[in-house]
Amino acid sequence: MDTLEAYLHRQQQRVETALDQWLPALDQYPPGLMDAMRYSVFAGGKRLRPTLMLAAAESVGGDSEPVLPAACAIECIHTYSMIHDDLPAMDDDDYRRGKPTNHIIYGEAIAILAGDALLTHAFEILSSPDLTERFSAEVLLQVSRCMATAAGSFGMIGGQVVDMISEGQVVDLSVVEYIHRHKTAALIEASTTVGGLLGGGSPEQVDALRAFGHQVGWAFQITDDILDVEGNAATLGKAVGRDAELDKATYPAVLGLEASRQRATELMQHGIEMLHTFGDRAEPLRQIAAYIVSRDI
Amino acid sequence: MDTLEAYLHRQQQRVETALDQWLPALDQYPPGLMDAMRYSVFAGGKRLRPTLMLAAAESVGGDSEPVLPAACAIECIHTYSMIHDDLPAMDDDDYRRGKPTNHIIYGEAIAILAGDALLTHAFEILSSPDLTERFSAEVLLQVSRCMATAAGSFGMIGGQVVDMISEGQVVDLSVVEYIHRHKTAALIEASTTVGGLLGGGSPEQVDALRAFGHQVGWAFQITDDILDVEGNAATLGKAVGRDAELDKATYPAVLGLEASRQRATELMQHGIEMLHTFGDRAEPLRQIAAYIVSRDI
Repeated sequence: MDTLEAYLHRQQQRVETALDQWLPALDQYPPGLMDAMRYSVFAGGKRLRPTLMLAAAESVGGDSEPVLPAACAIECIHTYSMIHDDLPAMDDDDYRRGKPTNHIIYGEAIAILAGDALLTHAFEILSSPDLTERFSAEVLLQVSRCMATAAGSFGMIGGQVVDMISEGQVVDLSVVEYIHRHKTAALIEASTTVGGLLGGGSPEQVDALRAFGHQVGWAFQITDDILDVEGNAATLGKAVGRDAELDKATYPAVLGLEASRQRATELMQHGIEMLHTFGDRAEPLRQIAAYIVSRDI
Repeated sequence: MDTLEAYLHRQQQRVETALDQWLPALDQYPPGLMDAMRYSVFAGGKRLRPTLMLAAAESVGGDSEPVLPAACAIECIHTYSMIHDDLPAMDDDDYRRGKPTNHIIYGEAIAILAGDALLTHAFEILSSPDLTERFSAEVLLQVSRCMATAAGSFGMIGGQVVDMISEGQVVDLSVVEYIHRHKTAALIEASTTVGGLLGGGSPEQVDALRAFGHQVGWAFQITDDILDVEGNAATLGKAVGRDAELDKATYPAVLGLEASRQRATELMQHGIEMLHTFGDRAEPLRQIAAYIVSRDI
């Protein structure tokens, strides 16, 4: 493969092009809504979840081109969750990725509706003719179920609720683990699982990709918590120290920085072990996993 | 058929039982979220959309029993839209159906997340094994697409955006029509369409049910606007005169009460005409259509 940097850049470019194609156009009615949807989608994300989905499809020998719409769908879900998370009633963040958050630009009402629209749009994409022409309806329903479960009350939303109600509380490690595994790992796990499903992986391969995604997603959130303590606000494009300010339940708060770093590394290694039968085609996934715990942004 | 009252009561009971079964149980983790989801779902709705879906399935000779999960899914979408619509940043309503709104009881953050969870849950239901065992994956994907499109940026959310940005504006009839057809008619149209699809209707029958749902949904919203002017707050269980207070774009505001009433009646009649080939099995749909424009709640 290319260097990881070149690989990530190439996949990111493909995702940007596909997102532009799969989101409602700016000139479509009603005014304001499409702008708000696009504003947050194109506010400069790393496209980690779509890239993992494409890499997962390729890791089982699949063609990642027809997977691009589903990669856009997962980015829509991720973006909606950030728009709602940043709202004044939630984390009340004014900046994300160095840019004003959605409600700062468009107001709270449109921010809520743009989030709702992006979540809904994900399921429109997953049932669109472009996908139904290319994949069996059975597989697409599995994909839809996988994403809905990961995003729902027993997945991401459950994690966000526990994250919020744990603010200012003394919590033990099991609560922090619940938050990480649901708020973040669930959707990353869905990314690699869906990649495996649409890439035509065997049930065993899809299971391995699911486990890989879960461990790596969990390691990603621990690293996020560490960066909130140690990171550079300019590099990260958002305020640091917000977790401590909100008295959030985080790994560093419960275990300390050193043990948190160690836990993230262990999870990443466990994740990579899941792919031991995958051969060279899984090299991008392995390198992304290693990058996730060593990144500074 | 029974009297309309008995028919509606019977279908409502079936929907209540199914909703109880299809929503996450109260004792499931995380605490608070499931309560908030269930609170608004069981806050006493008429279950119009689920009932129309069941009646539509029966109108094409289908068994409505396996349609119940999809009927729950559309009620989840409807309930989410009301929770978000009532938020302080949106219409800022403290009461709905005679009860405090979701954010009044659970706070804004949980209300936003409970709405998100209900929307997501709809798509979990539509791809659940209970449905995939009973219907073809092709039909279920059509159902999922129909609901997502009706609920999304070119459907319900689009209508809500225009509703909101039109507050305090001088608007012409075309804008009010856009609001009604998208904010309300889209989801009611999806109810009858999905009923036709899952009931095994022919493409012509499904098209007729789609058109019926659209006209009747539109008539429903005009009637809602009229009741906001003329209705009784105690009967309606919510404040009246809110549209005028918020200077909303409504039919009575643009056309006057008498012309609005006439328009609702015409739409209802057009809707019923769509079903002229359906025979007696469509009698409940016809009677519900007539009820929609004559109701006082």
